Amino acid sequence: MANSKYEYVRNFEQSDVLLPNTWIVIRIDGRGFHKLSDKYHFQKPNDRRALDLMNSAAQAVMRDIPDLIMAYGVSDEFSFVFHPNCQLFERRSSKLVSTIVSTFTAHYAFKWISFFPDTPLEPTFLPTFDGRAVQYPSVKNLRDYMSWRQVDCHINNLYNTTFWNMVQKGGMSNQDAEQELKGTVSSDKNEILFSRYGINYNNELEIFKKGSVLFRDYELEQVKRTPASIANTNDDRKWENVELSKTQLEKHQKLRRKANVAIAHVDIIKDEFWEQRPWLLSNIPGRLPSNK
Amino acid sequence: MANSKYEYVRNFEQSDVLLPNTWIVIRIDGRGFHKLSDKYHFQKPNDRRALDLMNSAAQAVMRDIPDLIMAYGVSDEFSFVFHPNCQLFERRSSKLVSTIVSTFTAHYAFKWISFFPDTPLEPTFLPTFDGRAVQYPSVKNLRDYMSWRQVDCHINNLYNTTFWNMVQKGGMSNQDAEQELKGTVSSDKNEILFSRYGINYNNELEIFKKGSVLFRDYELEQVKRTPASIANTNDDRKWENVELSKTQLEKHQKLRRKANVAIAHVDIIKDEFWEQRPWLLSNIPGRLPSNK
Amino acid sequence: MANSKYEYVRNFEQSDVLLPNTWIVIRIDGRGFHKLSDKYHFQKPNDRRALDLMNSAAQAVMRDIPDLIMAYGVSDEFSFVFHPNCQLFERRSSKLVSTIVSTFTAHYAFKWISFFPDTPLEPTFLPTFDGRAVQYPSVKNLRDYMSWRQVDCHINNLYNTTFWNMVQKGGMSNQDAEQELKGTVSSDKNEILFSRYGINYNNELEIFKKGSVLFRDYELEQVKRTPASIANTNDDRKWENVELSKTQLEKHQKLRRKANVAIAHVDIIKDEFWEQRPWLLSNIPGRLPSNK
Amino acid sequence: MANSKYEYVRNFEQSDVLLPNTWIVIRIDGRGFHKLSDKYHFQKPNDRRALDLMNSAAQAVMRDIPDLIMAYGVSDEFSFVFHPNCQLFERRSSKLVSTIVSTFTAHYAFKWISFFPDTPLEPTFLPTFDGRAVQYPSVKNLRDYMSWRQVDCHINNLYNTTFWNMVQKGGMSNQDAEQELKGTVSSDKNEILFSRYGINYNNELEIFKKGSVLFRDYELEQVKRTPASIANTNDDRKWENVELSKTQLEKHQKLRRKANVAIAHVDIIKDEFWEQRPWLLSNIPGRLPSNK
Repeated sequence: MANSKYEYVRNFEQSDVLLPNTWIVIRIDGRGFHKLSDKYHFQKPNDRRALDLMNSAAQAVMRDIPDLIMAYGVSDEFSFVFHPNCQLFERRSSKLVSTIVSTFTAHYAFKWISFFPDTPLEPTFLPTFDGRAVQYPSVKNLRDYMSWRQVDCHINNLYNTTFWNMVQKGGMSNQDAEQELKGTVSSDKNEILFSRYGINYNNELEIFKKGSVLFRDYELEQVKRTPASIANTNDDRKWENVELSKTQLEKHQKLRRKANVAIAHVDIIKDEFWEQRPWLLSNIPGRLPSNK
Repeated sequence: MANSKYEYVRNFEQSDVLLPNTWIVIRIDGRGFHKLSDKYHFQKPNDRRALDLMNSAAQAVMRDIPDLIMAYGVSDEFSFVFHPNCQLFERRSSKLVSTIVSTFTAHYAFKWISFFPDTPLEPTFLPTFDGRAVQYPSVKNLRDYMSWRQVDCHINNLYNTTFWNMVQKGGMSNQDAEQELKGTVSSDKNEILFSRYGINYNNELEIFKKGSVLFRDYELEQVKRTPASIANTNDDRKWENVELSKTQLEKHQKLRRKANVAIAHVDIIKDEFWEQRPWLLSNIPGRLPSNK
Repeated sequence: MANSKYEYVRNFEQSDVLLPNTWIVIRIDGRGFHKLSDKYHFQKPNDRRALDLMNSAAQAVMRDIPDLIMAYGVSDEFSFVFHPNCQLFERRSSKLVSTIVSTFTAHYAFKWISFFPDTPLEPTFLPTFDGRAVQYPSVKNLRDYMSWRQVDCHINNLYNTTFWNMVQKGGMSNQDAEQELKGTVSSDKNEILFSRYGINYNNELEIFKKGSVLFRDYELEQVKRTPASIANTNDDRKWENVELSKTQLEKHQKLRRKANVAIAHVDIIKDEFWEQRPWLLSNIPGRLPSNK
Repeated sequence: MANSKYEYVRNFEQSDVLLPNTWIVIRIDGRGFHKLSDKYHFQKPNDRRALDLMNSAAQAVMRDIPDLIMAYGVSDEFSFVFHPNCQLFERRSSKLVSTIVSTFTAHYAFKWISFFPDTPLEPTFLPTFDGRAVQYPSVKNLRDYMSWRQVDCHINNLYNTTFWNMVQKGGMSNQDAEQELKGTVSSDKNEILFSRYGINYNNELEIFKKGSVLFRDYELEQVKRTPASIANTNDDRKWENVELSKTQLEKHQKLRRKANVAIAHVDIIKDEFWEQRPWLLSNIPGRLPSNK
């Protein structure tokens, strides 16, 4: 029985290939995590186990997909970054998004019990994620995207930390706390935390304040902060002028697989983070740490 | 700290809204399931447990997302169908694809242990899926898509059944079996199965031969096979002329949630399947069976 | 000198193929025609020469591109319709839009002098048009699009006719006329026209009230307005079940080229227009009038 | 009469906004210019009048649309370039393509008679163009695109010059000339031209060998070819770090309108062309020549 009579339906599949030579960010978000965090009794304002689980799942995604350059996570969202010279799945958007989302979901479900040993998943309340792809043409655009997420992390965490202290320690109702915080600026919230609850926001955990950045861990570059070196770091698009042989590409891929995927809670807005890890922008792996 | 300096990066998010008034099919496929089926010792040519797990996960997806009309699965793939009047997620492609893929993955991972109690999942070999959206403007196009998948199921199953009998019972090498089957037509394969291994292909399990179709289970319509009734069934786009009130829409959604999601292994190419279940094309729920 | 070093830039060309089996409407609009109509002293509220020029250019476009089914024009806009089974330029959006826009522009510029013999074009004030493609999956969607444009024509023409009579005959300022018309309904405008200026709007020219519809002119079908015939006319997608041989396709294309492109100013909202011209929806040419 | 009943059809218009921060190239091509050049007796291999007409039309397009950075033309094609920070028409692809195509077509038709005074256009043979938009994320990509077109110009012109000399002066048939040229390299063609027809290809007109590049004509920058200056010129994306006030933007737009649009036939592959005209990549107008 031939299938040719029906095969014309394949012509309805439309191309969704992303533009070459752009940074690809796949951002995934937890679906209905507000309800889900209630269901599984996540602690407010931050549940360390839930964040560690997110990071652990993201780490596994980066191990499974060596083309990924880095990832940044906060709350129930994670952004995964592909380099402009990435050719994975011919840069088809649905394929990239669905693969990341599915891989993340699988690890999250699998690892759940290690992080929440006392509250096993229930079939009617499984954690799921949606995702989308966004393209950024320049290094500046990419770094601004990452900065945007990290600033957002800070803004939300300061708000949430203040709010939940007002509710949990201050005994205020959600509505009253929300009302009082309306229109306040950062210094107001710092002041509330300190004067009422004796909390210095600066002493909060870095993972809460900065979120989590994941990257392959090569030896840090010595930062010589001369103007030239800095210009060099920000030198967009070094990769465009480097033609790599097949052997080199394979060697790089091997190094990526070997490298440890680090999880750090550091500033990714300033230049230093990027200058010390030139492989993030060049996509050329650094040296594996000697203890490997 | 304001985030406005970086917020411009949101402008790089491009619209991926699908065309209104088209059927949306989300097809998902197992990633690397050839290797995975070896790893977890799936039986050849068909592993009933693996198929039942796929169906069970798809059933859960249909329960979680009442907007889904139906689904069809074969091997490690599943096609989920949204109606032309579906407005879920404003018809954004990435959102639809990633939600289906993530929900399916979560249920598949969660249910695994029930179907494979003796071979638990290993963290370096988790089952994952990718997916894509395709739009079909007409009922004919949609039905031809479904027919395409079911014919494909048949072609592959006949081939695989013959191939694995030649290998498992006939003691042939994979290469020899492949070589002998090259260029054969259906009747040749039926003949090999019958004359060499005493197998009548017609007696194979329907789930293997026809795949699995999932739909919400209302009372079947009496089929009066008059020309008029048939024309009526194939009457495209009845829904375009029906304006539903908000109350009706909510009542429909409630009925969809209440309805059992049936799993059947039947012909979906001929008209009968569709004539008996007019709700599939009209998106107007039927009557719940009286025993509910 | 080989060009291979640079040829990679072709990979940046992205597919813009429209979905198969949808109606394609290319709508073009005059750019800056408000200023242009002042510059060349178009009469208000309607300049018959300008409308006739638009129609003549659109007629030439339909002659040049036999795949076009029909066109509808009002003021400085024109909508051109391709059938769902159209394969022109592989249905690439840019190619379809740019070809229509360019062909229309060329004819408009070329024919200008015949319609405006006393006001030749000036190089710094050439008439130009932009365009876009929109897809409609169903006959109902297409007809509703056409109805939308014709209703818009009526609304604008009634307003403009009233406004310009108030200004030109009533000696009111633009601002005063605008102010008085704010919030009025159709009957108010009819009343103003009749009571103040003795104008019965119904007697206005059909081309002003109804716009212009262009189509290939075959012999009209006898309208037998039985419920069955009407259902038949609205029977979506007859074409999906008709497989045409190459010979038939060529014969059809020949008939399309031979047929006169009619310009009519008639109601295209009601069924009658479509029932009498079944070729519009079926894309199967009718009989050429016998006097041809 | 309200139009709301039909207005839903607007929802079928899909977004075609191009990615921010990419170079946009709109390439237009003559439709059926092979036939058209026969019809109007274009000279082979190059018709100077036809090229001058193309350039004149392109020049007018650049005057009408000050957002255009530059253009490059060869034969019956022209590429128009918008800067990554261009916001014209919100970067909607159809709008950009159709506007360029229509404006070019209008000027081409209008100017025809000045360049071909003896062969007026005929209504059944009007010159028309199609077009498409391509996005390039980096300066390197854009320059490689421009180089690709100029290399193509050279390759085609050398071939055509040789071919038509063999036919016109050598009395060979088209087929024989084509046959002999099959597989030849540049030096072979140079040799044929020189040895048989006494033609030194280097002495051919620059417009034939290099095509035509159009740009706004400010005072050339002194080229100081130090490594630093060159790095500076190729310094991608200077514009990303410059925030311009509304006043500055208006001043720039004014300068662009004032500047003469130059037509040159020069090498655009090497750095020099770009180093001398930094405004091409920076989108910051230079100084108007003092004689202005």
